Amino acid sequence: MDYNELIKNRRSIRDYKDQPVSIDILKEIVKESTLAPTSGNGQPWEFVIVNNRDMIKRISDESKKNLVARIEADPTDYIKKYEGGLRSDKFNVFYNAPALIIIGGPQNHKMLLVDCALFAAYVMNAAAVRGLGTCWINLGSDVRDPALRKELGMSPDYKIVAPIIIGYPKGIIPPAPKREEPVILKIVT
Amino acid sequence: MDYNELIKNRRSIRDYKDQPVSIDILKEIVKESTLAPTSGNGQPWEFVIVNNRDMIKRISDESKKNLVARIEADPTDYIKKYEGGLRSDKFNVFYNAPALIIIGGPQNHKMLLVDCALFAAYVMNAAAVRGLGTCWINLGSDVRDPALRKELGMSPDYKIVAPIIIGYPKGIIPPAPKREEPVILKIVT
Repeated sequence: MDYNELIKNRRSIRDYKDQPVSIDILKEIVKESTLAPTSGNGQPWEFVIVNNRDMIKRISDESKKNLVARIEADPTDYIKKYEGGLRSDKFNVFYNAPALIIIGGPQNHKMLLVDCALFAAYVMNAAAVRGLGTCWINLGSDVRDPALRKELGMSPDYKIVAPIIIGYPKGIIPPAPKREEPVILKIVT
Repeated sequence: MDYNELIKNRRSIRDYKDQPVSIDILKEIVKESTLAPTSGNGQPWEFVIVNNRDMIKRISDESKKNLVARIEADPTDYIKKYEGGLRSDKFNVFYNAPALIIIGGPQNHKMLLVDCALFAAYVMNAAAVRGLGTCWINLGSDVRDPALRKELGMSPDYKIVAPIIIGYPKGIIPPAPKREEPVILKIVT
């Protein structure tokens, strides 16, 4: 796909068809995205692929529980604006997505956040090339339960940076929200 | 350009032709990159475009000075491995690049690092589509001198996340360093 067309068409998608995503496509997207640059070519990323709606719901429930606890401990936490949804049994932070790619790595790695974000940009583009929609779900990253973490292959020092939901978009993809003109503080020529 | 071709050809480039980059192309790259997603469509990014080698060298000198001070204050800082270069008058952290796009924003914004990294991925791809090379230079991000910051339009709470050098690559672009097989901790189906 032409790059300019791709970036104009890539949208964050939160409503998916029932159609499952093949595990081979999910693995291919992860493999291809290793072409992303990393600081000092460090490649600190590690991944969990979840292609199962029951497990996706369990991760959502666990993250919601921990985010509500955060709000109760500190009502000034910026997460508070999501409190209504987080307290609702009906709300799945991953919406109705059939698949989830979790991008993360060792929490003490100095460049983990930016390296994982670069990887996430590649995953979202790789998915769009294949007709798949994605959305980075930050509300799905607070997974603490040791038993669940172990089930997902996460060591105690593993930090989830980018949980990316994936699936085939349902209905018409809405136009991209308008971008602000970039704020250029200074041009030095 | 075809997306798959683009991601295979995009490389971090540290050696550039003398050929300058037009300011219109630099502005176009920034504008196009606002198509990157941000958390909650927050678009917290702010930019400085430097198309002037003297200013690029001044930013390099300022960042080197502050990084050396960091190493002196804490010899366990991971920056210490770069100490040799940082103490050398001949080393410009931005190499011989003719242009620099600085991506950053308000330091207290919760998602600033990942939002700016997503933007950086778009900038690096947008440049590659136009035959330009780029490299994210983390060693160029420690700019503290209030006078220089003011000259660059940076408010006191502005945090530099991604200084990206840009120019026309000199010579043959070397093959991409081999990527490790992705570490997939678990696949849940």
